[in-house]
Amino acid sequence: MYSNKIICLLLALFLFAPTFATSKVIELSASEINKNTDDMTPYIYNLLSKAENKKGNFKLVFPKGTYHFWPTEAFGKYHAITNHDNGFRYFAFPIIGMKNVEIEGNGSEFIFHGQIIPFLVENTTNFKISNVNIDWEVPFYLEGSVVAANDANTSVDLRITPGFDNYKIQNNRLIITGEGWEENFLGENICFNPQTKAVQYRTDDWHYIAKPWSMDVKATQLSPDVVRLETRFVQKAPPIGTIMTFKGTFDNNRHSPAFHFSDSKNMAMKNVNIYHAGGMGVIAEKTENIHLDKVNVSRRPGSNRILSVTADATHFCNCKGKVVIENCLFENMLDDACNMHGTYTKVEKIVDDRTVIARLSHPQQFGFKFASGDDTLQIVRGKDLLPKSKMQLIKVEIINHQFAKYTFKKPLNGKIEVGDGLENIEWYPVFEFKNNIVQNNRARSILISSPKKVLIEGNTLSSQMTGILFEGDMEHWFESGAVNDVTIRNNTFLDGAYGGGSPHVTIWVNPHQNEVNPDIAYERNIIIENNLFKTFGDGLLRAQSVDNLQFINNTIEESTTYLKWMEEPVINIKLSNNIIIKGNINKRSKPFEVKLDDSTRRTSKVTE
Amino acid sequence: MYSNKIICLLLALFLFAPTFATSKVIELSASEINKNTDDMTPYIYNLLSKAENKKGNFKLVFPKGTYHFWPTEAFGKYHAITNHDNGFRYFAFPIIGMKNVEIEGNGSEFIFHGQIIPFLVENTTNFKISNVNIDWEVPFYLEGSVVAANDANTSVDLRITPGFDNYKIQNNRLIITGEGWEENFLGENICFNPQTKAVQYRTDDWHYIAKPWSMDVKATQLSPDVVRLETRFVQKAPPIGTIMTFKGTFDNNRHSPAFHFSDSKNMAMKNVNIYHAGGMGVIAEKTENIHLDKVNVSRRPGSNRILSVTADATHFCNCKGKVVIENCLFENMLDDACNMHGTYTKVEKIVDDRTVIARLSHPQQFGFKFASGDDTLQIVRGKDLLPKSKMQLIKVEIINHQFAKYTFKKPLNGKIEVGDGLENIEWYPVFEFKNNIVQNNRARSILISSPKKVLIEGNTLSSQMTGILFEGDMEHWFESGAVNDVTIRNNTFLDGAYGGGSPHVTIWVNPHQNEVNPDIAYERNIIIENNLFKTFGDGLLRAQSVDNLQFINNTIEESTTYLKWMEEPVINIKLSNNIIIKGNINKRSKPFEVKLDDSTRRTSKVTE
Repeated sequence: MYSNKIICLLLALFLFAPTFATSKVIELSASEINKNTDDMTPYIYNLLSKAENKKGNFKLVFPKGTYHFWPTEAFGKYHAITNHDNGFRYFAFPIIGMKNVEIEGNGSEFIFHGQIIPFLVENTTNFKISNVNIDWEVPFYLEGSVVAANDANTSVDLRITPGFDNYKIQNNRLIITGEGWEENFLGENICFNPQTKAVQYRTDDWHYIAKPWSMDVKATQLSPDVVRLETRFVQKAPPIGTIMTFKGTFDNNRHSPAFHFSDSKNMAMKNVNIYHAGGMGVIAEKTENIHLDKVNVSRRPGSNRILSVTADATHFCNCKGKVVIENCLFENMLDDACNMHGTYTKVEKIVDDRTVIARLSHPQQFGFKFASGDDTLQIVRGKDLLPKSKMQLIKVEIINHQFAKYTFKKPLNGKIEVGDGLENIEWYPVFEFKNNIVQNNRARSILISSPKKVLIEGNTLSSQMTGILFEGDMEHWFESGAVNDVTIRNNTFLDGAYGGGSPHVTIWVNPHQNEVNPDIAYERNIIIENNLFKTFGDGLLRAQSVDNLQFINNTIEESTTYLKWMEEPVINIKLSNNIIIKGNINKRSKPFEVKLDDSTRRTSKVTE
Repeated sequence: MYSNKIICLLLALFLFAPTFATSKVIELSASEINKNTDDMTPYIYNLLSKAENKKGNFKLVFPKGTYHFWPTEAFGKYHAITNHDNGFRYFAFPIIGMKNVEIEGNGSEFIFHGQIIPFLVENTTNFKISNVNIDWEVPFYLEGSVVAANDANTSVDLRITPGFDNYKIQNNRLIITGEGWEENFLGENICFNPQTKAVQYRTDDWHYIAKPWSMDVKATQLSPDVVRLETRFVQKAPPIGTIMTFKGTFDNNRHSPAFHFSDSKNMAMKNVNIYHAGGMGVIAEKTENIHLDKVNVSRRPGSNRILSVTADATHFCNCKGKVVIENCLFENMLDDACNMHGTYTKVEKIVDDRTVIARLSHPQQFGFKFASGDDTLQIVRGKDLLPKSKMQLIKVEIINHQFAKYTFKKPLNGKIEVGDGLENIEWYPVFEFKNNIVQNNRARSILISSPKKVLIEGNTLSSQMTGILFEGDMEHWFESGAVNDVTIRNNTFLDGAYGGGSPHVTIWVNPHQNEVNPDIAYERNIIIENNLFKTFGDGLLRAQSVDNLQFINNTIEESTTYLKWMEEPVINIKLSNNIIIKGNINKRSKPFEVKLDDSTRRTSKVTE
């Protein structure tokens, strides 16, 4: 058993080695580049379609330069991407069904125009990309700074940021325009601070109530670069100088992630800067072994754009093998730096004694390939998400992009009920997130949902919501993956949870259970040790339904950057077991307040 | 040569025989029906998926009854349908890759719920359906009658038609709701007359300026069934009592046609009533031999809904063999009764001496399978749409849903230029439209674009725009098919062109050429004989770029239903050749005014 593990590990390391033999080098010539300066897309498409290349086995080398890519004559297909909006999409580099593909950019700029996905890597083994900068000529959002605000009539006057001429006013509405697209609604919006470049302190109070399709934002052009918007805010108009950003409506604003890895194996990215994307920086699903080294999702140095990508920097859904993210800078995204999770499908019907019908429930999961015919699934109870049993499939029949029929090898014997969740336990990765910086983004730094070994080490994290969040749920996102072995050590947690709104804390263990069983935890074995916390708020750790959570040898310092906006103990744990809190150094003037409910206290040890 | 033609004709008749041997009869049992009264869809899906049925060879017999169909567990896929909106669609009867399928409804009601396509027949040979009524529980539009109108503030108060509770008012907006869908914009709208049930006289003056995504319609609930809408009209508010209809925005309101025939052969429909659809009644593309007998697209007798389907009753794009439509009633659609045409793709790039890249240009053509690898294409000049040459393909490579690369058997030798059109001359049908009634619909009765033999006989036609329209164009719809042999005889044309707006006439030959060559006509051989015209307007025939147009032995009577709203000669022809006008009986008090331009007059014979 042990030796098998070693062999597996060695095999994994071997497979995952970032260098692999590519049989030929295709170096782009100056004449080819000169012929295609307006649009490299058809040239690359033809190159990839050639008989000698379409199975891969090449290294494509770009001389250092600036290359432009348009969707017009790009490869296109209907495309489902998890946690994005499905639709007919265009791709600049459709790496599909290949082996051994390497792209060397030599520090080149790849500039994209309009709705196009730069890199799709699908059903491919061994893909590596290095030394490329990715950006869009016209970004998928609009920004401007507040030059006047009026709480009484709830208007703001925005000076559109220089360089953002991608808008028009029509019928009293502000329409965001781009290359080949228009966004008719301001949609999702958030404020940034021009000095810190971070999300504005308590931004949740300022943002517009601009629901999808809301018509109640009236726009008037006051001068060539100033637009007045009249609507209503959650609490009040944002302060003068604040930068407002608008990215259009939910269900229509995640179309062009920079990298999509799907059903692939051994992906390696090194020295890649993603300065923008209309969606995530890197989204991977059902992919084995991914290594990101110095992959920065960040503002372009010197740019006056406040945002990098319009969703998560990185996101991994039901990946396996090993996912490593190291030495990266993730900043100014409109969503998490990293979300790693599996998927719950919900049982809707028992068909016969071996077969059930289950449903993918979140619209951004529609079309996700949840399981194959021989995967082993874990069945969890709907009400508390706790495991009931494991069962092996023999057949999966897709009904449509939501529903599928799952036939098991052995009879159900009452082991599955309507309302239960199914979780594909074959597709979770070992995960390392090391020596990265996360700052200035909307939402969280990291979400972790994998039962495999997880190491979060040496990072500096500062996000507007929670720093590290654990949450399985079967009510909104349907993300699975109770943890079993997590180490969070030697990280620096700077100011977080400064966005206001919900009561975020720095580390939050928050499974969404309708009923919590105080004796059986959802999450297990989370070790938080030797970290430095330097933050303005009190809440460092809040948890429930966790067994063996250790908070040890951490140092806590006080930050005065922001004013505290909610009351919360430093540590606040309930309905959990075997909690150890010890060896922490509290350098703040305030006490180290630890709150445990009675059921938790019985099995826990707290010193400081 | 002659005998070959006879053999082909006999073969076509044989293949097209509406009765064919189906190997087994599947009669639905009462117990199966009782188990599935809420939703028959999964039962039918399972039945069609069974190994013994999935290649076809069955007759499915429904005992007379009412059957309900929902999209929830329906077969689903991304689906491109010409002249509709592409997207992920659900199908109640996915007849795909089958042979010899017959559906006998015995007069049953098939009631659909939400966005679902009742019948998809794809890559299938020999399909027949009889004795079925198709309707939706909640229709894809909203209607109400004007109970008050105010031209000054351009508001109308609408009493929502009883039974239409499919709406809500939110943020001062009227949102159309349905089963599983919401339409956030009133969008395309038109007025009907409650007495005649026809489109309102001069409706183009009354309708709302409600462009897609327009926000400027403010809605207020005045009483439980009365809603006030404030916006602006083209000319003025519609008269009290007028019925306003709203079907949502263009590009989002053609999702659920009743029947989609695609890449199939020998389709037969008999005694089918289509009372509603969110799109067309029957849309067929690249399908050979279609026979519609007593297929009514109409208001359900006794229903208080003013509309039948929300687009064309029937539409045929690049079909071939023989299309016959007879004994049908087409009324109260929101578009044409029948549009029969091919497709122009526009040449965008010359790749090499045998290869060009061409583009499908209208968004509702995206994804259309324009040609196969050995089709012969006709090349037409962009400026006048006149044929330049014919060339056989050897390869078609799809780039994306707009662009494709076409490689020809022989060198281009300058025969194709950028801006030319390509037309697939292998895919046009012989067409007969006989003994049908068209009335009360928005748009035209018939559009004809096929070079094959066309017979339009024994029909009664009365539409709000043109009765019979001929128009190829490469500027908006990109519909091809210059005619070569058309006979229009023994029809009754009642009041038409009563909607106002554009200067429609009863029969209009109107190819959209940027330059007209007076010596070479686009259309040829149109014989209009022995018809009765009884209409309030003067314009019976307007034409240009036609060779051998005959208007003979027709009778013209006067109707006093409406007031004439534009000046137009009875016959108005320019830039044409070989026109014959003779033997017509003018029973009106006004003269039979014929206007020919000089170039036309030189080769024409006019007596009366």
